[in-house]
Amino acid sequence: MKVDGQHYRTLRAEPAANRVHIIDQTLLPHAFEMRALDSPEAVAEAIVSMRVRGAPLIGVTAAFGVALAMNRDASDACLLETRDRLRATRPTAVNLAWALERMMQALAPLPVPRRAAAAWDLAQAIADEDAAINEAIGRNGLALLEAEHFLKKRPINVLTHCNAGWIVTVDWGTALAPLYMAHDRGIPVHVWVDETRPRNQGLLTAWELAGHGVPHTLVADNAGGHLMQQGLVDLCIVGADRVTRRGDVCNKIGTYLKALAAHDNGVPFYAAVPTPTIDWEIDDAIEGIPIEERSGDEVRIVRGLDASGRPASVTIARASTKVVNPAFDVTPAKYVTGIVTEKGVHPATEAGLAAARPAS
Amino acid sequence: MKVDGQHYRTLRAEPAANRVHIIDQTLLPHAFEMRALDSPEAVAEAIVSMRVRGAPLIGVTAAFGVALAMNRDASDACLLETRDRLRATRPTAVNLAWALERMMQALAPLPVPRRAAAAWDLAQAIADEDAAINEAIGRNGLALLEAEHFLKKRPINVLTHCNAGWIVTVDWGTALAPLYMAHDRGIPVHVWVDETRPRNQGLLTAWELAGHGVPHTLVADNAGGHLMQQGLVDLCIVGADRVTRRGDVCNKIGTYLKALAAHDNGVPFYAAVPTPTIDWEIDDAIEGIPIEERSGDEVRIVRGLDASGRPASVTIARASTKVVNPAFDVTPAKYVTGIVTEKGVHPATEAGLAAARPAS
Repeated sequence: MKVDGQHYRTLRAEPAANRVHIIDQTLLPHAFEMRALDSPEAVAEAIVSMRVRGAPLIGVTAAFGVALAMNRDASDACLLETRDRLRATRPTAVNLAWALERMMQALAPLPVPRRAAAAWDLAQAIADEDAAINEAIGRNGLALLEAEHFLKKRPINVLTHCNAGWIVTVDWGTALAPLYMAHDRGIPVHVWVDETRPRNQGLLTAWELAGHGVPHTLVADNAGGHLMQQGLVDLCIVGADRVTRRGDVCNKIGTYLKALAAHDNGVPFYAAVPTPTIDWEIDDAIEGIPIEERSGDEVRIVRGLDASGRPASVTIARASTKVVNPAFDVTPAKYVTGIVTEKGVHPATEAGLAAARPAS
Repeated sequence: MKVDGQHYRTLRAEPAANRVHIIDQTLLPHAFEMRALDSPEAVAEAIVSMRVRGAPLIGVTAAFGVALAMNRDASDACLLETRDRLRATRPTAVNLAWALERMMQALAPLPVPRRAAAAWDLAQAIADEDAAINEAIGRNGLALLEAEHFLKKRPINVLTHCNAGWIVTVDWGTALAPLYMAHDRGIPVHVWVDETRPRNQGLLTAWELAGHGVPHTLVADNAGGHLMQQGLVDLCIVGADRVTRRGDVCNKIGTYLKALAAHDNGVPFYAAVPTPTIDWEIDDAIEGIPIEERSGDEVRIVRGLDASGRPASVTIARASTKVVNPAFDVTPAKYVTGIVTEKGVHPATEAGLAAARPAS
């Protein structure tokens, strides 16, 4: 997507120069800087320090970490060592382990002199696949926005929560992909961006939308219900960390409250995910999905810029104030209008999602 | 209520010393300091600068401002001038105009030499009335907590939003009064305190509860729905800026979202208000109640303490980021279990609220 009129992906490889360029996301939304990584060590550091973040993007970046390692030493020992080092950076990230295994399985059988070129090719293929999946999500979600606009003949107001945008993928994002695509095609959209406490990822969404020129307005998380009551929201679309086969949506804390308000006001509510995000096993989402409990300091300490424009933080509650900080909640399928995937828009039911199920 | 074990009201008069002591609320929750006011000018400054805040407390403080003026000059001219000066401090505050008119009507007919003593007596009576009304709200709400505790035989978890506590009244508060009373009587309660963006008034609630020793936990506004899904909330209770005769509740933005979650999870949801907060005229709350739109800087700028413990603020979103910041929302009566007033607990219906209606 675009930043100040120029097209970027979150990651750009220069195999000949032995470099991968990433966006240093620790500086967002306050500064936009590219950073060149030239070794698997630099890739590991970028993942650990969250210069790259978001499950799809971490996996792709790690794949390029293997390619950088192969440029230096394509031996079996180095291949194994690189896989292990990179896998340890975020041990719970499923996409990371998946991308590294895919690299291993493709490279290990090859003669050593052919590994480096193959590694760069495969890492790029994994990156391109991610962008293609998200582009397909965008196309499928676009149809929903086009239909609203055809009916209403005015700009379509879409509310989103958290950040499911291009910066956590290679390009397009998930929930935001249909919005970028609509904007690019001249369908007028305006996005209500939930601030998304406590980590304020809505500010990243606002930064993305501003960079690509999509009209948007930042609101406190508390405001969405009122906006819907006033008829100011035509459609909600969010990403998800997990969707169950029955259509329950596990996403950033607060998503459930917006889905309730959408239901109460007759506003369609969608989650947009690549099909691998669908969990085909779990029965009862509220009982079955463990909800990560994060540090209370995410609530107590707020980051931003000081009066001189330098990064700064303020403490809003004393360390003695007990805080509980669940990171996700579950929106029951009955409040979800549909699940948008790269395969289509599916009703949030077991029968509806069957079309998204991989052949087994 | 108590601060560090000592009982305080938000306001304490010393007529003989020509002083009224207030809590300087501009310093809360980070510092607790009393401040002595010794002139109507000092009272006006305290109201304008929000050292005292909350409709009931502003009215009472202004009444003492008249008493301070009468100590200096009890002439008709001074009485009128003081009324006008104080009324202009917060022109839309209904309680302020009401308290000043009550002082005027009582003092104007009196001989000049008797006015000062009468003014101090009446101001104190207005203060005591406010505390008594809130204490009655507390008693009526207490019955709900007692019933929950009797049934469940364990600590009762109550979620509240914003700050409807003792510091916006003379004592007790509205939504928090039942909680203080339950705690004082040994009924174990634990309070989930919504942070309440964008102004973070939940931090004031946390400060109040800490001072009085009531167990509580601060949460992001996004968390309440998840807590209810997990069975961690027994009851919700909030204050209100206006309640309609049909039981619709206009309160701090985000209240509606919590009421929806309460309804979805079978959690009782109450609003606690003095009966003058009930609007007997309005028909359609969502159409009829104007919702104040406040500055986007309330969202963009977050206040707290810096690393050295000094008051500081950070900017989380650029001034160029458009923000919409509605201050209130309307919770339809169908999501409200009851309205707690000084007269009782009323079903949130026109018939139910008839018992709270003043005789006309």
